[in-house]
Formats: sequence, structure tokens, C-alpha cells
Amino acid sequence: MKSVCYKPIGIIHSPFKDTKNMPIQPIGAKGIKGTVELETEYKDGLKDLDGFSHIILIYDFHLSDDYSLQVKPFLDDIPKGVFAIRAPKRPNSIGISVVRLNSIENTTLHISNVDIVDGTPLLDIKPCVPHFDCLEDVCIGWLSDRVGSAVDKKSDERFHDSSAK
Amino acid sequence: MKSVCYKPIGIIHSPFKDTKNMPIQPIGAKGIKGTVELETEYKDGLKDLDGFSHIILIYDFHLSDDYSLQVKPFLDDIPKGVFAIRAPKRPNSIGISVVRLNSIENTTLHISNVDIVDGTPLLDIKPCVPHFDCLEDVCIGWLSDRVGSAVDKKSDERFHDSSAK
Repeated sequence: MKSVCYKPIGIIHSPFKDTKNMPIQPIGAKGIKGTVELETEYKDGLKDLDGFSHIILIYDFHLSDDYSLQVKPFLDDIPKGVFAIRAPKRPNSIGISVVRLNSIENTTLHISNVDIVDGTPLLDIKPCVPHFDCLEDVCIGWLSDRVGSAVDKKSDERFHDSSAK
Repeated sequence: MKSVCYKPIGIIHSPFKDTKNMPIQPIGAKGIKGTVELETEYKDGLKDLDGFSHIILIYDFHLSDDYSLQVKPFLDDIPKGVFAIRAPKRPNSIGISVVRLNSIENTTLHISNVDIVDGTPLLDIKPCVPHFDCLEDVCIGWLSDRVGSAVDKKSDERFHDSSAK
């Protein structure tokens, strides 16, 4: 299949200068602030976004340079299929995070609950509308008895150092 | 900024052979069945995914060949900023849908609640874990009094026919 190419529309800034010791999900990043610096050419696309409390950021895990199909996630010691975890080392290094949108100033978005490394290239912004999803009878597989740990678990270097695969 | 290129990992199949008259969100596609045909090379990445009832599909809106920064969404007559809507015609034509995972057979995923056009290139699969997101005090801006309409509203050709921008 033909490759698909995207041009980043901005940069995500956060207090996390490297991938070690970061929150592993937004639930563990509550209150952590950051910004999105959108390229000025896209400014008109921000109209009406300020009415939303939460937005979905889609970005490239730019520090992830390869992948394994099965990896040990932060929340378990047994390797899982890469599509059953959210780790950065995936066939296509795409990340998504739901963050709180605090305010918009020109092309700067002030955000909270940021679990993203500083300097990450942004690919898209979508409004977060939980009402759109059909979430009935949700099961979360291997995470069922581990999801609570995502609140305070921090990352180590396993998804940055390729020797740790 | 440097472009980011991804190689599709599979194809999404659905009953929707073109973009007209489709449900506009998963909530309007309840029960509609489809499949994901994953490339066989990624099979081992599916381990442990079958424990999840819902998965996030990330895909390319391959029929969208351009974009506007402000467009009329299906649920309103007043143009909105493209980042405040989920329409396909966006600077980077990335789509996300939460679908129900019914079963996995080899590299075929049987899914429901499919609001995706047949033949769409798949970029990533992630487990859907609502517990990971910090969704407190959600506001949905211009959609507040229109979100109910997403259940039965169908698409027209505005996001396929570029004359309709």
C-alpha cells in the first residue's frame, strides 16, 4: 500500500524534556500544563474551538525510531501485542492524547493534563465529544486490574532506548 | 517542519461504498458491521487485543484531497473552524473512530459501529481505555444543543465534492 505523508501543523510543548519519568497517560498528568504552538497559516481553523473543554491531539512519536510487535508495557511484565497497548514504538508512530483546553491566544493553545514529550510534532486537533462514541459494556482486557496504576506510574527509558525492546 | 510518512497496516471494510448517506459518527452507526483486514506481517501485534470490547482505529481519509480552514459541518449551517469539527477535509486527513471489537480471526477483525467508508487505509489500532482520559467537566461548545442529531444525521457529498466547500 502507498505511504501517506502528513506535514506537522504545530509543536507541542511540555515540561517533559525527555521520555524518562513521564506520566504514561493523561490520567497521570492531571494539572500538568503545556502549550500547542500552531503554525500561523492554520489560525483560522481554530474558530469555535474555544467552546470545548477537551481536545484530542494527534501527534507523531518523533523519538520512536523503530518498533516491535510485542512489547512489555509500563503496567505489566508480560509482553503484549503492540495494538493492545499505547506505547510509542508502533508500526506507525502515531500518538493520541485527550487534554484539557484552558485558553487560546492567537495560535497558542494553553492545555493541561499533558502526557506528551516537549517538542512533539502535532498532526491534528479534533474536538473531544464523548457523546459521539458508542461506549456500552466496555471491557479493557489485560488492563482491567492494572488501570488504577496509570495514575502514578511513570515511564522509564524502554521506549526510547532500542536495546530495551 | 519535516513531513511524516506512514505505511498503512491494513484496510477497513464497511457497507459504505461512497461517502454519501453515511452515519457521521459511531453513535449513528450502532450495529453497523465491518472488518479490518490487517496485513499479515503485523499479526503478532494483535496478541491480547481480544480482551478489549472497543478499539480506536486511526486511518487516512483517503478520499479527501484538499481542505478548508473553515467548513460547514453536517450538524450546523454556520461554518466552523476545521479543528472544532471532525470532518474529513482537514490539513492532515487523519480520522479516528472508536468501534466495537466483536472477534478476531487470524488477521481479520470483526467490528461494529462503523462510520468509515469501505476501503479506508488503516494506520494504527489502539485499545480504547476511557479510564485513561481525564474527562471532568466536559463542555462541547457549538455541539451542545446539536449532539443528539448525530444519532440519525447522514452525510451528504460536501466533504467529497470539492465544489461544496
